[in-house]
Amino acid sequence: MEKISIALLGLGTVGTGVYKVLKAQKEDMARKIGAELEIKKILVRNLEKAAGKVDDPGVLTNSWQEILDDPQIQIVAEVMGGIEPAGTYILQALEAGKNVVTANKDLLAVKGKELFDAAGRKGQDLLFEAAVAGGIPIIRPLKQCLAGNHMTEVMGIVNGTTNFILTRMLADGMEFQEALDLASRLGYAEADPSADIEGLDAARKVAILASVAFHSRVTLEDVYTEGITKITATDIRYAREMGYTIKLLGVAKETEGAIEARVHPMMIPSSHPLASVKDSFNAVFVHGDAVDDAMFYGRGAGELPTASAVVGDLFDIARNIRFGCCGRISCTCYRNLPVKKIDEVTSRYFLRMQVDDQCGVLASISSVFGSNGVSLAQVIQKAKQQDTAELVVITEGVVERHFADSLKILKGLSIVKEISAAIRVYGD
Amino acid sequence: MEKISIALLGLGTVGTGVYKVLKAQKEDMARKIGAELEIKKILVRNLEKAAGKVDDPGVLTNSWQEILDDPQIQIVAEVMGGIEPAGTYILQALEAGKNVVTANKDLLAVKGKELFDAAGRKGQDLLFEAAVAGGIPIIRPLKQCLAGNHMTEVMGIVNGTTNFILTRMLADGMEFQEALDLASRLGYAEADPSADIEGLDAARKVAILASVAFHSRVTLEDVYTEGITKITATDIRYAREMGYTIKLLGVAKETEGAIEARVHPMMIPSSHPLASVKDSFNAVFVHGDAVDDAMFYGRGAGELPTASAVVGDLFDIARNIRFGCCGRISCTCYRNLPVKKIDEVTSRYFLRMQVDDQCGVLASISSVFGSNGVSLAQVIQKAKQQDTAELVVITEGVVERHFADSLKILKGLSIVKEISAAIRVYGD
Repeated sequence: MEKISIALLGLGTVGTGVYKVLKAQKEDMARKIGAELEIKKILVRNLEKAAGKVDDPGVLTNSWQEILDDPQIQIVAEVMGGIEPAGTYILQALEAGKNVVTANKDLLAVKGKELFDAAGRKGQDLLFEAAVAGGIPIIRPLKQCLAGNHMTEVMGIVNGTTNFILTRMLADGMEFQEALDLASRLGYAEADPSADIEGLDAARKVAILASVAFHSRVTLEDVYTEGITKITATDIRYAREMGYTIKLLGVAKETEGAIEARVHPMMIPSSHPLASVKDSFNAVFVHGDAVDDAMFYGRGAGELPTASAVVGDLFDIARNIRFGCCGRISCTCYRNLPVKKIDEVTSRYFLRMQVDDQCGVLASISSVFGSNGVSLAQVIQKAKQQDTAELVVITEGVVERHFADSLKILKGLSIVKEISAAIRVYGD
Repeated sequence: MEKISIALLGLGTVGTGVYKVLKAQKEDMARKIGAELEIKKILVRNLEKAAGKVDDPGVLTNSWQEILDDPQIQIVAEVMGGIEPAGTYILQALEAGKNVVTANKDLLAVKGKELFDAAGRKGQDLLFEAAVAGGIPIIRPLKQCLAGNHMTEVMGIVNGTTNFILTRMLADGMEFQEALDLASRLGYAEADPSADIEGLDAARKVAILASVAFHSRVTLEDVYTEGITKITATDIRYAREMGYTIKLLGVAKETEGAIEARVHPMMIPSSHPLASVKDSFNAVFVHGDAVDDAMFYGRGAGELPTASAVVGDLFDIARNIRFGCCGRISCTCYRNLPVKKIDEVTSRYFLRMQVDDQCGVLASISSVFGSNGVSLAQVIQKAKQQDTAELVVITEGVVERHFADSLKILKGLSIVKEISAAIRVYGD
């Protein structure tokens, strides 16, 4: 039987997962592919430490050059992460005529164009299903299954750590810090959780998703990013009372020939399919003109789920090699759309503030909104204590800078003691 | 620009959808494919009736031979439905070296092997994303993205009519007939709804899904099928009280080297992702050893969603034609597993019955279950009226024939006045 040789770059969580899956599925993969997939080399930093993780330590090497120079290696699976040296290795592999699978969202979100251009020039495959939403099939469905659609919206829960935190805050009434501590104890949050809780990890995935969905390159710096650190149990309770659930969403839209790409907490109707995505699960919701609404749900991280996506890509490339058609599905960014600044985006807002409990307060506040073109959809006044009332409003859709202007004026009013929360709400 | 010519067989709902999508996406498809996708011929029965549906009636023909003999036509999209003549046309198209897209679940569920064998012999593509769950990408994800998994479970809400009916019964407390009437009025149910409400439509999809997921051919006659006509508002209310939602599920499992394939109403925990799939939406939930749980959600029927799936297949074949790699992903049934009889399957059961309201009844009933090896997980006795009590039990997992034996004996007991409902419950 024909043999197709792979090199793994990295033997961390994902690398180990890929090794395990390929070992477990060895015979089945051979039957599916019509050729044997063999891990010929694994690039690691520490040969001794890695030796315990593999059956045959002979496959381990700390020399990238050895892999690059090996003409038998036709596929390189980059699962080491980070911008460099991963970026250079991928470029060199493509230049050397090898195909590449990568799970590296950090890299693709900033240097995608350079890498895909290199793959395109050489007619090689550069697949990256694992880079977004871990094990969930989303890149291939968007590029192939939904190719007949003009996609207008991609909205995802693409970070498991923050979804776990928000789920605990909702289900158990925890405050943010308490839920974060629990996530850390259970291994759902990293030692330094900032990339997760500040939305950076989700922003990388949004950049990639938007590029694929709208056929126009979106990079990390195009994505407006806001995390969940300011969300309180009080806001979550209010949301629930009003029929909403707060999620950290990556949102990408195409509106009026421009792209919106942003990550922020959002109140979505509790009946929306994304609202029932709990714990560390991820989901990507899409809307296209033909398919209408669709959603893809599953595990967005973890050793084996992420390995599942990497191995799916290896399968596809192996079939391409056997059929002599590498580069069959390549970069699909054939448009060049501008990305809107967040100031120009239209949002609805939930605004919670502490105000003086006296006559005329609501009129004053309404007038600030009115003069900035902000219409109110819902007003709730409650939880009075001493001379303070809690005022909650939900606005109609408003251009963000108009909302920001209103907020500035409100903050300057003596009757407004505190702006406690401003959270975007789903809908136009 | 290179031109790739297609023939559409049929201009009903799906055919019209494909025509519309290809027209709307003409320029984008050309850029995605690198070639122009042209509908050269459309096979219709009535040329005059069809003329109003297309821009250029010159593409219409009522001669299959004309299409078959046209060497320029490289792809045939069969969207006419039914077993014949669709089956013969597909075979002839494949034999003539044409690639085929089909949305025809009826045909694939009974004659899949013959068709895929023909495609395999000729190295042609035979794609069928639209045949299961309409617009939802599921076939390609299973065959490609999840190729690294040993799949053990596929569970789907794959019939929109019945999901709409069950949703209304749950949300509005309707009885079955009332909800069916509403579905008919709103166009969610066909004039003769029996294939939907009796589970036959779902069974066809389960046969296809099981074949793809487990790499072993499952045909319609292998699928145990039970519809939703006996479900009552009372059972739905009980289910909700106990934390369950009743759905018509297509279930396919691989257990102990055999396949289970069945369609029946099932109580699933209301926290399960499938429980929140409402109205006419479809969803397919899968479990694999690497990916863990994943779910695919969207519109399972309708003109444009189904067309979205057909056009995705056309895109893929067009890329294959350009890269000279048709037949790249072919039939993957390389195993030959037995399909279990329903008698041998293990299920949990919800059983609701009317019994005499007297001492010792529960003991008698428990003893019937006990002597047939059926353990009870939950017992509720309530709703007494006159001398009758309503007894509800949920069993632990039990081999179906043992449960059936218990039921026969219970029916013979004088203290049991009526077996009101027996519904399977999710879990082993």
